[in-house]
Amino acid sequence: MVAKVEIIFNCQKLITFGFMIKISILGNGNVAFHLYQAFADINEIEIVQVYSRNKTNLFPNHLLIHHFSDLIEADIFIIAVSDDAIEELSNKIPFENKLIVHTAGSISLKKINSKNSRGVFYPLQTFSKDKSIDFCNIPICIEAENEKDATVLVKLANYISENVHVISEKQREKLHLSAVFVCNFVNHLYHIGALICESNSLPFDILQPLIQETSDKILHLHPSQAQTGPAIRNDQKTINLHLSQLISNDHQNIYKLLTYSIQNVNKL
Amino acid sequence: MVAKVEIIFNCQKLITFGFMIKISILGNGNVAFHLYQAFADINEIEIVQVYSRNKTNLFPNHLLIHHFSDLIEADIFIIAVSDDAIEELSNKIPFENKLIVHTAGSISLKKINSKNSRGVFYPLQTFSKDKSIDFCNIPICIEAENEKDATVLVKLANYISENVHVISEKQREKLHLSAVFVCNFVNHLYHIGALICESNSLPFDILQPLIQETSDKILHLHPSQAQTGPAIRNDQKTINLHLSQLISNDHQNIYKLLTYSIQNVNKL
Repeated sequence: MVAKVEIIFNCQKLITFGFMIKISILGNGNVAFHLYQAFADINEIEIVQVYSRNKTNLFPNHLLIHHFSDLIEADIFIIAVSDDAIEELSNKIPFENKLIVHTAGSISLKKINSKNSRGVFYPLQTFSKDKSIDFCNIPICIEAENEKDATVLVKLANYISENVHVISEKQREKLHLSAVFVCNFVNHLYHIGALICESNSLPFDILQPLIQETSDKILHLHPSQAQTGPAIRNDQKTINLHLSQLISNDHQNIYKLLTYSIQNVNKL
Repeated sequence: MVAKVEIIFNCQKLITFGFMIKISILGNGNVAFHLYQAFADINEIEIVQVYSRNKTNLFPNHLLIHHFSDLIEADIFIIAVSDDAIEELSNKIPFENKLIVHTAGSISLKKINSKNSRGVFYPLQTFSKDKSIDFCNIPICIEAENEKDATVLVKLANYISENVHVISEKQREKLHLSAVFVCNFVNHLYHIGALICESNSLPFDILQPLIQETSDKILHLHPSQAQTGPAIRNDQKTINLHLSQLISNDHQNIYKLLTYSIQNVNKL
């Protein structure tokens, strides 16, 4: 049985290869799953195989392989596995002169075995298997060793996204770093908010309109202009009150450090 | 001239007083402005006056007063000024036995002069003058000294919001504290993301789909379930790489502390 997630997909396909392009996806995680879902609907793309070490119901059975000995040729192999597994997996691909890309934010394309052409196909997004996603606006960051490969990867990306960028390795690393701040760390602050609410018999949901408005606001205002709260007002009375109310040492330290940083960045 | 901001307003008005309720708003900041805009459209509410110390074009001229000697009677006076000004302003109200409320997150209602009935009417949201807002879903947190006043304030709040809560002072303080984490601190993390992007010739906009998806995700998943990234994976290689890439000491310290806190909260 194949897992079903509704796909919102309405990109205009402006560029075509003029022929069918054959891709295979190596990996069975969130990125592999969402890339599969996005490419599966494109007429000009044939998904040849999906390699998964373990059993999975995320992909159609007729595409799934579990051994590299079953891997057949394709034009592009997309390695969508954890950072540490990329190098070893690329060594196992039994072909040469194909285009092999990984999807990681902070791994050099040089980790891919050099017997093939190498590139990066990095979708800058957070993926969960149980949440559908509109690929159309997801920035896809492309890196390649030569212009020809970059052009091919941009074309491939344009089938599923209108937000495609060719960037350098350094830029990709910095994007990944920024993503940790605006996604992973932001989610942790949501979690702290939830913990404070829930330990005071308040549902986390009461914070939702504020959370949604905070992210909505920066669609129109640069975050430097959108900053509010006791830190930017230098409201020491409220800051002290808040610090006295925080039970967790971690939360106290985070409050102090972020308050200091807000006040500091404003002096720049 | 009165400033115009489009008001999105579609609350069902389920409860009516059965008579006109007269309110006056004291203050000319963001909260005063948005409360005025929300109440102005309600047939059952008459906005008697708006007190503003300074000249302002945010309110109709015929409602504006600049001196307390011009203040006339109303049923409810809403003090929407900065925390430090609440007490002094409440002392200047030349009436007794009216219902006076403030709109602050962490100020006791006891700061309001006791010659009047006292309450809190705290909208849990971040307001900007140049961004319209749908009041309908904004949690309005009510506090009063007796049940009669609480009932009146809940009814008043229900005219503009479907998300009204009667809470204790302690709960309100904790909500305000949570709000600092999920709004003010989150915005600062957006700002850090912007700084990292912009110093690497990348537009901040490239982070927008990730930011929007991160806040969207927790509408469906509790933040404890939505956590992703190197910290929760205990991916020390990426953590070290990121720390080496951060130029700002503040950003390094924030990265370390939030990583530690993500790993710590998971042990709980």
